[in-house]
Amino acid sequence: MAPLPFDYDDLLRSDLPPAAAPWSGFPRYNFVGGHNDPDSVPVDDLVAAATRVIGREGRSLATYGLSSGALGYRPLREFIAAKLARDAGIECSADEVLITSGSLQGLDLVNQVLLAPGDTVIMEHMTYGGAITRVKRLGVNVVGVALDHDGVVIEALEAILDDLASRGIRPKYLYTIPTVQNPTATVMSKGRREALLALTTARGVPIFEDECYADLVWDGERPQALRGMAGDDRVIHIGSFSKSIAPALRLGYLVAGWPLMSRILSIKNDGGSGALEQMIVAEYCREHFDAHLTLLRSRLRAKLDALMTALREQFGDSAEFEAPPGGIFLWVKLPAAVDTLRLTQAALQAGIAINPGAEWMTDATEGRRRFRVCFAHPPVPMIREGVAALAEVCRREFGMPPRPAAIHR
Amino acid sequence: MAPLPFDYDDLLRSDLPPAAAPWSGFPRYNFVGGHNDPDSVPVDDLVAAATRVIGREGRSLATYGLSSGALGYRPLREFIAAKLARDAGIECSADEVLITSGSLQGLDLVNQVLLAPGDTVIMEHMTYGGAITRVKRLGVNVVGVALDHDGVVIEALEAILDDLASRGIRPKYLYTIPTVQNPTATVMSKGRREALLALTTARGVPIFEDECYADLVWDGERPQALRGMAGDDRVIHIGSFSKSIAPALRLGYLVAGWPLMSRILSIKNDGGSGALEQMIVAEYCREHFDAHLTLLRSRLRAKLDALMTALREQFGDSAEFEAPPGGIFLWVKLPAAVDTLRLTQAALQAGIAINPGAEWMTDATEGRRRFRVCFAHPPVPMIREGVAALAEVCRREFGMPPRPAAIHR
Repeated sequence: MAPLPFDYDDLLRSDLPPAAAPWSGFPRYNFVGGHNDPDSVPVDDLVAAATRVIGREGRSLATYGLSSGALGYRPLREFIAAKLARDAGIECSADEVLITSGSLQGLDLVNQVLLAPGDTVIMEHMTYGGAITRVKRLGVNVVGVALDHDGVVIEALEAILDDLASRGIRPKYLYTIPTVQNPTATVMSKGRREALLALTTARGVPIFEDECYADLVWDGERPQALRGMAGDDRVIHIGSFSKSIAPALRLGYLVAGWPLMSRILSIKNDGGSGALEQMIVAEYCREHFDAHLTLLRSRLRAKLDALMTALREQFGDSAEFEAPPGGIFLWVKLPAAVDTLRLTQAALQAGIAINPGAEWMTDATEGRRRFRVCFAHPPVPMIREGVAALAEVCRREFGMPPRPAAIHR
Repeated sequence: MAPLPFDYDDLLRSDLPPAAAPWSGFPRYNFVGGHNDPDSVPVDDLVAAATRVIGREGRSLATYGLSSGALGYRPLREFIAAKLARDAGIECSADEVLITSGSLQGLDLVNQVLLAPGDTVIMEHMTYGGAITRVKRLGVNVVGVALDHDGVVIEALEAILDDLASRGIRPKYLYTIPTVQNPTATVMSKGRREALLALTTARGVPIFEDECYADLVWDGERPQALRGMAGDDRVIHIGSFSKSIAPALRLGYLVAGWPLMSRILSIKNDGGSGALEQMIVAEYCREHFDAHLTLLRSRLRAKLDALMTALREQFGDSAEFEAPPGGIFLWVKLPAAVDTLRLTQAALQAGIAINPGAEWMTDATEGRRRFRVCFAHPPVPMIREGVAALAEVCRREFGMPPRPAAIHR
């Protein structure tokens, strides 16, 4: 007999988010969630890596943390340290790299050691929705700083720091996604990085650098990471394999000096991150990471081209966007008559999932005309169909864009 | 150039635990940490499972949560639901099973939805150290309830509930490890389970049932789980594959009805638990779980026998313990002259790691004469050597036990 319900209402914490909805499958046109291209999952090479590494080292699964301690599987940390030196200009030892269960755990760990209710952090005013909700859930004040094509607007940041200082507030960190910014997909210029470091150094503000998309730059060079450029340990750096290999792998990493790392480790009491994921990915990456990335980037670029073409065809001048130099998403602006929160809800009814701009901005009202489209997952024909379907919904709800025939006239 | 230090001291939360120490490898005689038997890791069958499941379903790694939603990989949830029905007498659907990153995440999730600073929970007065520290870190009051060979002492629990009620306090839950209790390794009797359910039902107190060792009962039957016996959804049940397959796999599960589960899911914002671990373990378990457990139990039993023999030889009457019907640890009591915290520290200098009783009791001072020995990891000769070395340290520090020659005289 199935158990009867029990009333937990009086026992729950009072500050919980709303209850989750039951799982009902993915929408037909899935333009959210950071999913990746199924054709690009390197299935055969992952099988080969799993066979080799489990066969060779499987006995070590009998110990928590394998034989590598709480920082995570040492061969993976060594791969990451070498990769960061080469690709991001970060000099670090394997002992300054912590393997995390996705870069989301990196966000949580940094927040848990630094943030208390009433604290203040600065974030790019357009930024990853999950970073905003995490900080707000902790009772922390978020101040959004303006962005332009080159990254954080230094004068705007200076004004914020002046204002906070005048009120006796020292922000705990500035959170930034400098390379393939989420959602704008821009890359912060070298000059802007230098100015950002100079200003935050002068003011003693740590930088929390999230580079989870930085492997996906296909147009131009990936710039040196802020952590690599900084002369001190003031930049905390996180990254991920979710975007470069597969998101269902929960594997990210955090780079910090030992004084901070030792505090982070003391609260990472999860018995370690998943060993099979760490072992298989480390074994895979040693041989295949670079060639895989080259292939993945070319496929993502083709999908992006398909998306931009479809948007131009279906939305004409109504959709404004800037061609991104990499990544998996496009940030689109619609005419003032459109409310993308309402558009998102109506689109979902039609089987189309997009992220409304409101969820990706520190000030939700500023996001009213914007939405984010992740293009990595759907095949090209579905991208075309989905954009056409979205245009149809938008037309029904807001009387725009004009029909494609009108656009092409 | 390596980055210069940056002073985070003024930025850290004020309530952090002490900094972690750098990893320096495992001690020579490793009797802590819940590690398992390396010879029993089913290496070849895990390789075969990985090959099959990644080959067949690897493309689904491109989506967060595979195609199974936030509860976790559906075939694994179905295996767990069937296993719980058969082995634990729990009737649940796969949609009442949440895959967690180890049962530790189960502890964290339940605590996060139910506990706020100032709340009160009841725990067995001897219990898992990590459960105690987690709750105390949240600013929650812990009330320890007495245990005897059959489990929670009902009269003691009643007195605690009366006292709390008289002060207007409703405890958030009673945390219990009914089957192979940690650290006592006892199994709560059926009668005691019935009495516990009757009393806590009458008082409206949820039970948080941790059965992470319950697969390892080799002497007698595994009793029906409290969640299976309860007529309502008042028992939250967690379990793990750490003890039955391998601890470096971070795979546990949580069983709850949807009203509570939907709240737990809303705060499990980790992008899902590791997909490769879930897929490989599900594929492995379908064919091999039962035969593997039979073999593992027989090997653990042989190690336990070696440990108990070594303790009798080296400590004679000085060491008191009860032969456990399963599990991976032994709970030992020494004469009143010994302080096991001091013993633990001295032993570690000699390369022997044990858990001092103080860390496994809600009232640390009560644990002064006790220690916990995990026997699953070291090979039998190391168990013998390690116990002899521990006796030597104890003799040097506390003048007991007498030398083995004296014991065997």
